[in-house]
Amino acid sequence: MPDRHGDDRDDEVLNDLLIQAGSRFDAAGVRELLPGVLAAPEGGDAEAWMALIAEAPSDALRGALRALRVEIAGGPAAEADHAARLAALRAELGRRGLGGFAVPHADEHQGEYLPLRAERLAWLTGFTGSAGIALVLADEAAVFADGRYTLQVQTQVDTALFAAQHLIEQPTAAWIAAHLPAGAKLGYDPWLHTEIQVAGLRTAAEKAGGELVACPDNPLDAVWSDQPPPPIAPIMAHPLDFAGRASAEKRGEVAEALRAAGAEAAVLTLPDSIAWLLNVRGGDVACTPLALSFAVLHGDATVEWFVDRRKLVPGLDAHLGNGVSLRAPDELGAALDILGQAGKRVLADPASAAAWVFERLRAAGASPVEGVEPCQLPKAKKNEVELAGTRRAHRRDGASLGRFLAWLAVEAPARAEGGDPAGGLGEIEAAERLLEFRRGNENFRDLSFDTISGAGPNGALPHYRVTPESERRLGLGELYLVDSGGQYLDGTTDVTRTVAIGAPSAEMRERFTRVLKGHIAIATARFPRGTTGSQLDTLARAALWQAGLDFDHGTGHGVGSYLGVHEGPQRISKVPNTVALEPGMIVSNEPGYYKEGAYGIRIENLVAVIEDEARPGDERPMLAFETLTLAPIDLSLVEPALLTSEEIAWLDAYHARVREALAPLVDEATAKWLEAATRPVAG
Amino acid sequence: MPDRHGDDRDDEVLNDLLIQAGSRFDAAGVRELLPGVLAAPEGGDAEAWMALIAEAPSDALRGALRALRVEIAGGPAAEADHAARLAALRAELGRRGLGGFAVPHADEHQGEYLPLRAERLAWLTGFTGSAGIALVLADEAAVFADGRYTLQVQTQVDTALFAAQHLIEQPTAAWIAAHLPAGAKLGYDPWLHTEIQVAGLRTAAEKAGGELVACPDNPLDAVWSDQPPPPIAPIMAHPLDFAGRASAEKRGEVAEALRAAGAEAAVLTLPDSIAWLLNVRGGDVACTPLALSFAVLHGDATVEWFVDRRKLVPGLDAHLGNGVSLRAPDELGAALDILGQAGKRVLADPASAAAWVFERLRAAGASPVEGVEPCQLPKAKKNEVELAGTRRAHRRDGASLGRFLAWLAVEAPARAEGGDPAGGLGEIEAAERLLEFRRGNENFRDLSFDTISGAGPNGALPHYRVTPESERRLGLGELYLVDSGGQYLDGTTDVTRTVAIGAPSAEMRERFTRVLKGHIAIATARFPRGTTGSQLDTLARAALWQAGLDFDHGTGHGVGSYLGVHEGPQRISKVPNTVALEPGMIVSNEPGYYKEGAYGIRIENLVAVIEDEARPGDERPMLAFETLTLAPIDLSLVEPALLTSEEIAWLDAYHARVREALAPLVDEATAKWLEAATRPVAG
Repeated sequence: MPDRHGDDRDDEVLNDLLIQAGSRFDAAGVRELLPGVLAAPEGGDAEAWMALIAEAPSDALRGALRALRVEIAGGPAAEADHAARLAALRAELGRRGLGGFAVPHADEHQGEYLPLRAERLAWLTGFTGSAGIALVLADEAAVFADGRYTLQVQTQVDTALFAAQHLIEQPTAAWIAAHLPAGAKLGYDPWLHTEIQVAGLRTAAEKAGGELVACPDNPLDAVWSDQPPPPIAPIMAHPLDFAGRASAEKRGEVAEALRAAGAEAAVLTLPDSIAWLLNVRGGDVACTPLALSFAVLHGDATVEWFVDRRKLVPGLDAHLGNGVSLRAPDELGAALDILGQAGKRVLADPASAAAWVFERLRAAGASPVEGVEPCQLPKAKKNEVELAGTRRAHRRDGASLGRFLAWLAVEAPARAEGGDPAGGLGEIEAAERLLEFRRGNENFRDLSFDTISGAGPNGALPHYRVTPESERRLGLGELYLVDSGGQYLDGTTDVTRTVAIGAPSAEMRERFTRVLKGHIAIATARFPRGTTGSQLDTLARAALWQAGLDFDHGTGHGVGSYLGVHEGPQRISKVPNTVALEPGMIVSNEPGYYKEGAYGIRIENLVAVIEDEARPGDERPMLAFETLTLAPIDLSLVEPALLTSEEIAWLDAYHARVREALAPLVDEATAKWLEAATRPVAG
Repeated sequence: MPDRHGDDRDDEVLNDLLIQAGSRFDAAGVRELLPGVLAAPEGGDAEAWMALIAEAPSDALRGALRALRVEIAGGPAAEADHAARLAALRAELGRRGLGGFAVPHADEHQGEYLPLRAERLAWLTGFTGSAGIALVLADEAAVFADGRYTLQVQTQVDTALFAAQHLIEQPTAAWIAAHLPAGAKLGYDPWLHTEIQVAGLRTAAEKAGGELVACPDNPLDAVWSDQPPPPIAPIMAHPLDFAGRASAEKRGEVAEALRAAGAEAAVLTLPDSIAWLLNVRGGDVACTPLALSFAVLHGDATVEWFVDRRKLVPGLDAHLGNGVSLRAPDELGAALDILGQAGKRVLADPASAAAWVFERLRAAGASPVEGVEPCQLPKAKKNEVELAGTRRAHRRDGASLGRFLAWLAVEAPARAEGGDPAGGLGEIEAAERLLEFRRGNENFRDLSFDTISGAGPNGALPHYRVTPESERRLGLGELYLVDSGGQYLDGTTDVTRTVAIGAPSAEMRERFTRVLKGHIAIATARFPRGTTGSQLDTLARAALWQAGLDFDHGTGHGVGSYLGVHEGPQRISKVPNTVALEPGMIVSNEPGYYKEGAYGIRIENLVAVIEDEARPGDERPMLAFETLTLAPIDLSLVEPALLTSEEIAWLDAYHARVREALAPLVDEATAKWLEAATRPVAG
């Protein structure tokens, strides 16, 4: 480790190493790059970023890069002073003649995971939930979050600075209408809201006698002095062995659909669409291999990709081919202007594209065509290579989960019975152990989301994230719910198992079995082409309804192929959705039941939509689900008397499949446990 | 019968009779009234119109009025010459500088049943289906209808004049875009389209380089020389014994909801809403007791009712009370102008109000508030008096249907076996017989829709209407499907039964039983508050899906209380619908199966949403359905081996209820048949 930082001699050594490695960067270039690297998550491989520097860095170069990274990262950040931050923002608003400003939890891509740079809501208020918005006026301010985060807001936010509001029960629009002074200008960043959201803010501001004003130059960014830069993580090719279809073929197909819809170009703002379309994967945000960027797809199937070139690993140009031209991110506006000047009909999706895109297109004279993002549907329909990949990934992932569950079956009761000075196995250790089992897997890259590891009452919070403060020990007679997934090059997994530590109560068994009946009803559903997930949702709930129970989340979400663990456009939900389930789509099947303050139950497998085998008498082509996830369902929680013989047959057949698939992949102790855990229920 | 018509002496006699009866009309007034009376359907009572003339007309007055009606009705209409009509319309379009005109199957209220005056599509093209549109250009014309009517269009329309188009597969917008000459003006009557429909026409016309032009003065009406006048049928009070809630109370509640929605008034264009709100019933269209009219509800709960005063039976003013002011129908525009000049926020429903309403409001300077029609939801939630009424009506209706089914069980096979020179019982006679059984019932007023009476392959047409040309005889080994309903003062019924004539095939039994499983799944559904009919629809289909079967219509529609047999806003359908089912709502439960060219199956009961009895362990308030319809389900079509024990228990309990309720109301022979027809399936 060097004893002096950043001096000339160090950079000289680094320069030599970089030249030896054939790098396109010199030391100064690497210094310039590193703040962006630090603004990206570490991901599964903390040194993956070095691929940006050289294809095969020597050990010496690795060491030097590691040191430089430590140097640039600097010490721990100072304690946040939210009062000072709020005051600075208000002063800036005052300088700009604004009476207020909206700070949503959002980035330019309306993504689920934000880069550090876009964590404006957390920076300003301290609130780190995955959804919310702050409204800052001259004399008051409020932070809005939904019911999941009521407690978290109280813990994280200084409510002397920000009134805590319930996003659904006290919506922002009503608050603006009631609090914005007449004549005041309410600012918003058009990059961070969709058109629909802007319309809501505008109506509210006008109701208050105020005005809504776009601020493309975000006033919060102006006062956030140490705001991280945009993240820089390597963008790699996603090879045909995993992607299954060439980018040129995909671009041709989507371009044809564009033309059929009467558009001449489409603005792509969703990084997962771009990743799919170009067969690339990045690392700019946590848990999802996205490269934050924009693209314009033209009717001739060419793409202009607005991306920081420094993120491309050496050789990626060749992978992209001639149909893709690279442009700097800040050239997007000029490109839209050109489309506008040519009077082109340009498609953008009002549900996901930033309002900025529409405003710019209109200002430039283009005719924006409002339409569904054109990559979403073809991306959702996985091809045979992707399906084969996800089946492989699910076998490996199931083996890891099996090893974890086998370990847990011994460890948790033993430690709960007094063998542990801490009072039992903790939720954090359990989650870490599960990650360890996954980490060794072929093609494993990262978790697909932060593991939900909840014991007892913590399991009753469907979106629980364990912290040292919230952590509980797994106690005897309690349920433990673990919802986790991995990002593998060949597929994305997402699985929930609920297990009893020691002996469960009769009520737990009864409710678990009702959840299982719902799970089986989805797993065995047979439905005609054209059926939507909204139509199937009730099958997952009917057994709970009979007992006066229900669960307050969707039954299933779409899942990507080494992409987002949540993707559209299909889903299984009581919320109306007009997208038909089509062969190749992957969705989760995850009914649950949550008893507040007591325990939570969820049984989640991923399933793929398949064409069902024809049966004699069939009049219509029928679809069905193939269950992809392979892991035992805790039989100590199953009450066979509540199951029909068909349901028992499904459970036994599933367990036989799990046993057969996983036994060859696990150690002997796990195999033995697996044998018992998957024993048949029927006679 | 007088030998001379319309002479002075006859009118003198009539005048005397009118004076004696205390009528508000003299003979000349009655002469003026009668064309409107003739433009209304006869309904269940061909002389109901006489209530307009006098409260208790003497026999002599009745005779004179009957004679005058015959005189004014004149002889049968001349054969329609559609070529001449089309030519006349084109000439009129030419005079107005129009290149085309849209002729939808619609009236000013977007109603299901049209008054004669609004049968423009039938007048022009000959097509009498319940949905469709004609587009007339200078050199070509087309008529558009959906798949139900493909055959009917071929039969009724001269395709040398009008190209027959499939409404869904060859939509009007695409046809306009392809056929309207550039620069041409396409006219539409803003009274006959909603705003959404107008927007579609406009986009299409502009795509063709043409222009869409509103024609408030309908050019077809200008050339339809003997177009009937608006119908004049008596508007009667719907007494509190049936309505359950006073109009003033309803108006107060809806006005409060209006104010809460930020509106100061609402334009009501749906006659069933007005009937409900004012507790009145009319007779302007077939099968539904509607008074065609408009209303404006003000925020202070007063109503301006735009209605032809001549339709009000004597004494109705007192029933209406002070909160309702009567205005002539043609004063609606001026009233909207006044609202506009006062800058009022006026609610209208873009899904049901004529585009004319929005155009007029905007022209007058009002701020139209687009919102859901404010009476629809409160009207749908029947009160206890309405529910008690419908239970009574269903008992009477069930007794009639029971008598019909008992008669059919003997008559149909006997006549099919050769006892009938015509080769068996015909569909028309069967429907007439069923009407006869209903006609004698207390409070019976009319059918609630034209009876669907389909034997064999005719039953496979879900919307079949028998004609002398299409009629079939009920044959042995065939299924007979009869879907019918009555309008009773205390409730509206709608019921379908499918019965086997002779011995059914194993396939018929299997499919009938699958339909029955779906029916039972809806009948026994238990669901939390907030659940929509869209969420329940799949329960009706799952058993069919397992066998690769389905049906192509909704599972259930809302039903009014002595009002429309189809009403919103709730329904049970795979089409997304966000309206939650609420206690008091009535919907049909009518899964089916149709084998083209062979047979049709449908089992339909009406059900009311109720609060379900709490069960131990319930965590949420649960809703369920109470089945209202009482009629045996043909056990010869039930295959018990396909039913679960719970399903058999439902069927037996339902049949026990049917037997108990109907036996006291029917003759001995029917009671005996009923005993057998409702025998338990279990053990």
